[in-house]
Amino acid sequence: MASIKPSVPKGTRDFSPTEMVKRNYIFDTIKGVFRKYGYQQIETPTMENLSTLTGKYGDEGDKLIFKVLDSGDYISNIKHQYDVFLPVLEKLIKDAYIAAVTPGNETDHDYWVSIGELFEATKQDWINRSITLPELLRKLKINLEDSKISVGELKLTPAELGFESKRTTEDISEKALRYDLTVPFARYVVQHQNEITFPFKRFQVQPVWRADRPQRGRYREFYQCDADVVGSDSLLNEAEFVMIYDEALGKLGLKDFSIKINNRKILSGIAEIIDKADNIIDLTVAIDKLDKIGLDGVIKELLERGFTEADIEKIKPVILLEGSNTEKLQSLREALAGSATGLKGCDEIETVLNYINSCPLQTAKLELDITLARGLNYYTGAIFEVKTNEAAMGSIGGGGRYDDLTGMFGLKGLTGVGISFGADRIYDVLEELNLFPAAANQSTQVLICNFDKEGEAFGLPLLQQLRRKNINAELYPAGAKIKKQMEYANNKNIPYTVVIGSDEMQSGLLSFKNMTTGDQEKLTASEIVERLA
Amino acid sequence: MASIKPSVPKGTRDFSPTEMVKRNYIFDTIKGVFRKYGYQQIETPTMENLSTLTGKYGDEGDKLIFKVLDSGDYISNIKHQYDVFLPVLEKLIKDAYIAAVTPGNETDHDYWVSIGELFEATKQDWINRSITLPELLRKLKINLEDSKISVGELKLTPAELGFESKRTTEDISEKALRYDLTVPFARYVVQHQNEITFPFKRFQVQPVWRADRPQRGRYREFYQCDADVVGSDSLLNEAEFVMIYDEALGKLGLKDFSIKINNRKILSGIAEIIDKADNIIDLTVAIDKLDKIGLDGVIKELLERGFTEADIEKIKPVILLEGSNTEKLQSLREALAGSATGLKGCDEIETVLNYINSCPLQTAKLELDITLARGLNYYTGAIFEVKTNEAAMGSIGGGGRYDDLTGMFGLKGLTGVGISFGADRIYDVLEELNLFPAAANQSTQVLICNFDKEGEAFGLPLLQQLRRKNINAELYPAGAKIKKQMEYANNKNIPYTVVIGSDEMQSGLLSFKNMTTGDQEKLTASEIVERLA
Repeated sequence: MASIKPSVPKGTRDFSPTEMVKRNYIFDTIKGVFRKYGYQQIETPTMENLSTLTGKYGDEGDKLIFKVLDSGDYISNIKHQYDVFLPVLEKLIKDAYIAAVTPGNETDHDYWVSIGELFEATKQDWINRSITLPELLRKLKINLEDSKISVGELKLTPAELGFESKRTTEDISEKALRYDLTVPFARYVVQHQNEITFPFKRFQVQPVWRADRPQRGRYREFYQCDADVVGSDSLLNEAEFVMIYDEALGKLGLKDFSIKINNRKILSGIAEIIDKADNIIDLTVAIDKLDKIGLDGVIKELLERGFTEADIEKIKPVILLEGSNTEKLQSLREALAGSATGLKGCDEIETVLNYINSCPLQTAKLELDITLARGLNYYTGAIFEVKTNEAAMGSIGGGGRYDDLTGMFGLKGLTGVGISFGADRIYDVLEELNLFPAAANQSTQVLICNFDKEGEAFGLPLLQQLRRKNINAELYPAGAKIKKQMEYANNKNIPYTVVIGSDEMQSGLLSFKNMTTGDQEKLTASEIVERLA
Repeated sequence: MASIKPSVPKGTRDFSPTEMVKRNYIFDTIKGVFRKYGYQQIETPTMENLSTLTGKYGDEGDKLIFKVLDSGDYISNIKHQYDVFLPVLEKLIKDAYIAAVTPGNETDHDYWVSIGELFEATKQDWINRSITLPELLRKLKINLEDSKISVGELKLTPAELGFESKRTTEDISEKALRYDLTVPFARYVVQHQNEITFPFKRFQVQPVWRADRPQRGRYREFYQCDADVVGSDSLLNEAEFVMIYDEALGKLGLKDFSIKINNRKILSGIAEIIDKADNIIDLTVAIDKLDKIGLDGVIKELLERGFTEADIEKIKPVILLEGSNTEKLQSLREALAGSATGLKGCDEIETVLNYINSCPLQTAKLELDITLARGLNYYTGAIFEVKTNEAAMGSIGGGGRYDDLTGMFGLKGLTGVGISFGADRIYDVLEELNLFPAAANQSTQVLICNFDKEGEAFGLPLLQQLRRKNINAELYPAGAKIKKQMEYANNKNIPYTVVIGSDEMQSGLLSFKNMTTGDQEKLTASEIVERLA
């Protein structure tokens, strides 16, 4: 038996057959709706060039990208050879200096101070490669044989030798694992721009990897489920994303969920009317907390962040927006009358609401929420977020419009808008609400139980007839005890069994059992096929 | 515009919408057949612990595993600090020695020879950490300031400093990308042994990664498509895999393909009857070439590999096996009469053939082929390979039985048998034979074309009606020129368009166009819905 049980890397998961059936159910439902709305699937490679990914997710994001080690003799690609001796010398000198200034040894003090100064002065020559190591040492009057720098047992790590992870990575890794689906999509669009018909409506369902600290509900490998359209500024796209959320989540059985919508231009407008366009981040961070800390809390925070009482008086009506979406919009227009950008945002929201009025939603509530600011740094128009009211769970979807999606790869002026489904969270919600369909047609429908070679031979033609009718069927591949075969059926959630014993073979009437109710009947093989077809 | 067009890492691919539809068609067909035969899907993480993978694919395989760099400050984990100075010294001494023995400088010759000897003698002390660097240098009478070792510009690479890729990898990488689906499956079975009901029939369709040199048809990222059953020694499993190949490839439209079957025990038997059990690899490598080099070639190769004329006389009837599977089996039994193992192999093949006789194949030819030896190193029973006769292509599938699948992870005595579909090759074959279905129901069925906001508003209710009937439909999201909208439909292979101009809005009769035939009709909105439903 195994002494050490094998495991998977932390933050990653195996998916069992039961989990796969449920995950496929979620993905297939969402994919089906994406297709219904004209979105086409693409896939991009798991590995991207590191240069494609770095700099796109901020410094913190860059650290969380999984880098792939170059194949072959990557060590010979490390280019920092000129730097590696410097820290060695630095350490030698420092240690010797410390030794020299310890009581009883002060006589060397001046010598080491001068050496230290010389070293600082000479260091640059070495970095510039304008001096060789022996020359450097000579200049420093350093003699490694000299007992003065016998600094005990020297244990230098590569780090002490001047290697540094971040710089070394550039030399030994040129590929990395996909961190999200948006940057690879932008890369795809630019790379294949001559093959693509715009507007390009694509969806993509693939795993992404992040070297985050694993936590409950946060994994290092997880699927993203995105749809984006690039090259169309029509607000019909925004409206259709609202419909897609409504239809997909409704199909998955959710009955009470809200699609919140906002517009970056409205947030800009709010900042503009108080003449604080530059402080939009401070403003939205504070407003975003309304739910949690209430109006007084928000006001306190705004004051702390440098907004004046006069500012607050002006934006208070905006923060306290109430009523229907139309009423909110009306109040917003009045408050934002002084900002062309803000009014543009109102127009955009109104257009989306009008589209939805003409194609009413089936389940979701659409809610204008001006406190919604997610992804503010890159969204330029609509902002979406979806929340279920049936379970305590963060957002189960979100997205927005980002002008200039492909600008990072040099293709300017292509606008994009997209949404994402949080598949792992949706999984947890469906599990909690018991919404997964009981009978997944993906599993085996019937198990043929048998006790010996004769029973097996008797069961084979039935097995084949069932499969010809596209019924998922199995014959237990050994003459095991009936208990074991029934357990097998139960554990695989197989709804029906057929038992072939000697009586059954003689009479031609087989025992057909409904595993859910326990009901048993005697049926002929063809009756069984008919019953299951 | 982009100055440098972004790209993907070599050996990896983007899949366009058209390719995805075709790939999904292949995968969905195969998955459907797997499910019909009672196989359940699992997924394992993209990254496995490096220790799970190393040593499982041979030394060459180990090199081809993509390793993932540890996150964070991995450099400080490199543990070879004691070794790094040695090569520096070695280089210094070697270079100085070379300089010393060049003409005009011979006086130093004896000095450097003695230093070299001293170095060799002292080296081990340093490796054992029983001496400090300054002590070492003193012992070597080395003075870095000495002009004798001023050996020009010193440019030491990390490699020259003693870092070596293979050993460093152990320190800076603990995770790697999945190399195949079999080892992760074995790991899965051992890890989850208490949750699994055996026999466990699982399938898995996921990408794998290999740092192979990319070539036409060979990629660094490609999907594997495997089904295995573990914990059942019944030969019904082997027979069902033959049926699965027959059904899946038949469903994909292949009309002429062969499933070749062999048994490792027969190959062992052949080696046994000439008393050369240890030379089974040499024997099978030679026999395997019969197709290419003919009998004379095989005999020549066997002689070269140390087999005698007498050996060859004995095995010739086996190599020249002809006739039906039954006839071949009869001849084999006669030739292998002296080998219990060989006869066991014949029994096993016969059992599989009998199963297939009672459940006849629909398309495939099943062919006993004793020259088939793929994966000989790990297969212990049945060996499968599938070839199409309609296109020049290597094997499009293969597999076999391997006793002790999970032994590598400490769980002994679990037998496994499995097959794999070569999805990329099957794709190429279907493309070559034009077997992909023309109408993939995954794409948009109808595009509603419009020219202005009025047309859009008119089209929206129709769009919604179509989608309510589960018809994939789009409304062009801008009032573009008709030519552009038709191009969009053509490029997306949308089979029908509806045009809404001012005449159409007035009359209520919309222009419905079949994009394949070019036929156009005037229909009401509800007639269009009916037509497409």
